[in-house]
Amino acid sequence: MSYPSSYRLMQTCPGSKARAGELITPHGVVSTPVLLPVGSQGAVKTLTPGEVKDIGMGMILANTYHLYLRPGIPVIEKVGGLHKFMGWDGAILTDSGGYQIFSLARLREVSNDGVVFRSHIDGSQHLLTPELVIQFQESLGADIIMVLDECPAIDDDLEKVRRAVKRTHEWAERCRRAHKREDQALYAIVQGGVFTELRKQSAEFLTSLGFDGYAIGGLSIGETKRVTMAMTEETAALLPEGKPRYLMGVGSPEDIVEGVARGIDIFDSALPTRVARNGALYTRLGRVSIQNATYADMEQPVDAECNCYTCRTFSAAYLHHLFKCRELLAYRLATIHNLTFMSNLMLKIRGAILDGTFNSFKNDFLASYRPTDEQARLDQKQMWLRSRSQNQ
Amino acid sequence: MSYPSSYRLMQTCPGSKARAGELITPHGVVSTPVLLPVGSQGAVKTLTPGEVKDIGMGMILANTYHLYLRPGIPVIEKVGGLHKFMGWDGAILTDSGGYQIFSLARLREVSNDGVVFRSHIDGSQHLLTPELVIQFQESLGADIIMVLDECPAIDDDLEKVRRAVKRTHEWAERCRRAHKREDQALYAIVQGGVFTELRKQSAEFLTSLGFDGYAIGGLSIGETKRVTMAMTEETAALLPEGKPRYLMGVGSPEDIVEGVARGIDIFDSALPTRVARNGALYTRLGRVSIQNATYADMEQPVDAECNCYTCRTFSAAYLHHLFKCRELLAYRLATIHNLTFMSNLMLKIRGAILDGTFNSFKNDFLASYRPTDEQARLDQKQMWLRSRSQNQ
Repeated sequence: MSYPSSYRLMQTCPGSKARAGELITPHGVVSTPVLLPVGSQGAVKTLTPGEVKDIGMGMILANTYHLYLRPGIPVIEKVGGLHKFMGWDGAILTDSGGYQIFSLARLREVSNDGVVFRSHIDGSQHLLTPELVIQFQESLGADIIMVLDECPAIDDDLEKVRRAVKRTHEWAERCRRAHKREDQALYAIVQGGVFTELRKQSAEFLTSLGFDGYAIGGLSIGETKRVTMAMTEETAALLPEGKPRYLMGVGSPEDIVEGVARGIDIFDSALPTRVARNGALYTRLGRVSIQNATYADMEQPVDAECNCYTCRTFSAAYLHHLFKCRELLAYRLATIHNLTFMSNLMLKIRGAILDGTFNSFKNDFLASYRPTDEQARLDQKQMWLRSRSQNQ
Repeated sequence: MSYPSSYRLMQTCPGSKARAGELITPHGVVSTPVLLPVGSQGAVKTLTPGEVKDIGMGMILANTYHLYLRPGIPVIEKVGGLHKFMGWDGAILTDSGGYQIFSLARLREVSNDGVVFRSHIDGSQHLLTPELVIQFQESLGADIIMVLDECPAIDDDLEKVRRAVKRTHEWAERCRRAHKREDQALYAIVQGGVFTELRKQSAEFLTSLGFDGYAIGGLSIGETKRVTMAMTEETAALLPEGKPRYLMGVGSPEDIVEGVARGIDIFDSALPTRVARNGALYTRLGRVSIQNATYADMEQPVDAECNCYTCRTFSAAYLHHLFKCRELLAYRLATIHNLTFMSNLMLKIRGAILDGTFNSFKNDFLASYRPTDEQARLDQKQMWLRSRSQNQ
């Protein structure tokens, strides 16, 4: 376990930018394109590590910010690191906490040194610096770790975003210097908001330093999908071919297909698990709500084509009943279904790339999959962001 | 699957009334003494049927009252019966709903015909009669079904309890006449509150009719444990040796040991799963609270002697962390632990009976297991009963 996570590009699909590859990590080889399910607090919500693995997920994302606040890095270190703490022997990527500090925490004071913030849990005050963030992630022991970045808000103006990019670059350099564990890969995060020129500067600067991988940050935070994808396409094109590209916080089935088409290898999203707990289940034709009366007495599973534990074992009527009764089992069964859907989707995407048929797969998928209405999606996102800031 | 559930008494432990036996049901042979975990709404809270089975549970309890109100008997019938609906191929016992109507529902009007009540969910009005309750349980298709009974409150006077006993007897006769499915066993319920003479009359009357088994109802509803056990002992002594005896709604590890000592074969209780969700975990020495700061950085499992999935896989520190964060996985892991503890306890009890050493097992167990303080227990029970009636 002394080699760093590395990336092997296997094939780029003809007529497309879609790539198939492998991330070789100390905790297994992970096929790309890959979606990381989110286990912010050291658990993929409702599931055991064995279930996550059985679903076909080889890497998960955990959040340094959350784990730093609770249970605290020393506790996890004492128990033997994050893999052991959560009983997960697959690969882990830890986020640096940058995004959480700028979206979740209170009273931020950003200086060149680092960022002072108050915990969203108890209001206690904390300082994070690039060096501390690397130290924490080394203690947690994830296979892939991220630099500390400053995430501007989606409506920040050019000047504000420019300053955030500059600081992100300085912090990336300091993270790179501070990083000692050779068995961990360190990824940089390209910022620049929705400004093409800043994205370009950021990609160029960070690739000139040289990192094990490159993330595209600061997207999927309230802008339209058209903008998300335009910025993804421009930025991905500026990143080196031999390194993995990670689009942070994306996303939905259709966004992942679109992201792959633009050359993305890694995605993470809490969406499949979060919407599952609201009873929204993925099917080939789009998201359905299990609480809909249609399902009240349906003997068949929600998705007759699905091979997940939930669909193999239970009728739609049973799942509908569990949601109506708010039985805790409901949230598990729906989570298993949605993550299995995503795992299968990633397998199909990869198979199509290796077969050289990704473009037709993409067209077929997007023709049958009905995405959530754009305005409804933005409204929901705004509601969710507001509810998060009210819960601070 | 056309034979009824029958009981085989294998051994009564010398110097004790403790019995080991077997319930032979269309869904497997269940060793007794047995504790049925509770799946009121068609799910043992937080667990899949596979997990319940892996823990070693062969029979569960489900509630006719809850399933009648939601999803409704026709839905379960359409899907193919309760076993298929919940994906459980082990044995099921369904309660008649008597206890729920008298503890949970509103505006009860009891007549000789039956009982009119309002749903605790939406206030809708319903009539249940002995005949309907049997019809519903035949549709659900449990292996063991119960007669409709009238449950007096613990503070009802002699006259009130006498009337409830009389009605319970009339309803038991009507249930017996209405019951047609020969693959289901029908158990009667002995009532009589805390009045020895009424318990005696009830046991004599019901055994004279002849049922497949006999439950002791109307206990563990707020009286002291001393009273529960005195009434259990008196009543069990009046029941026929060759039929199974079921103490309803009991209970805690120490109560089960005491109940077995008084000749009880079957117990059901929501306690192990309910307290688990509050972070109270069973150990050989008593219940511990995982949220206690002691566990915040404990590398060992909560119970180093325990062979459950939770203790084999996770540190106490991890479980503590999940509870502090209110991660849904916490409730599952704690439930698995407590049900495994109970399953192991039942195995040990049965082994001791078959070895002829139950009395010394009982003494050893009760000497080391520290039960919850009696006053604290009664206070908690009152709080819980009040919170239920407020939620109506």
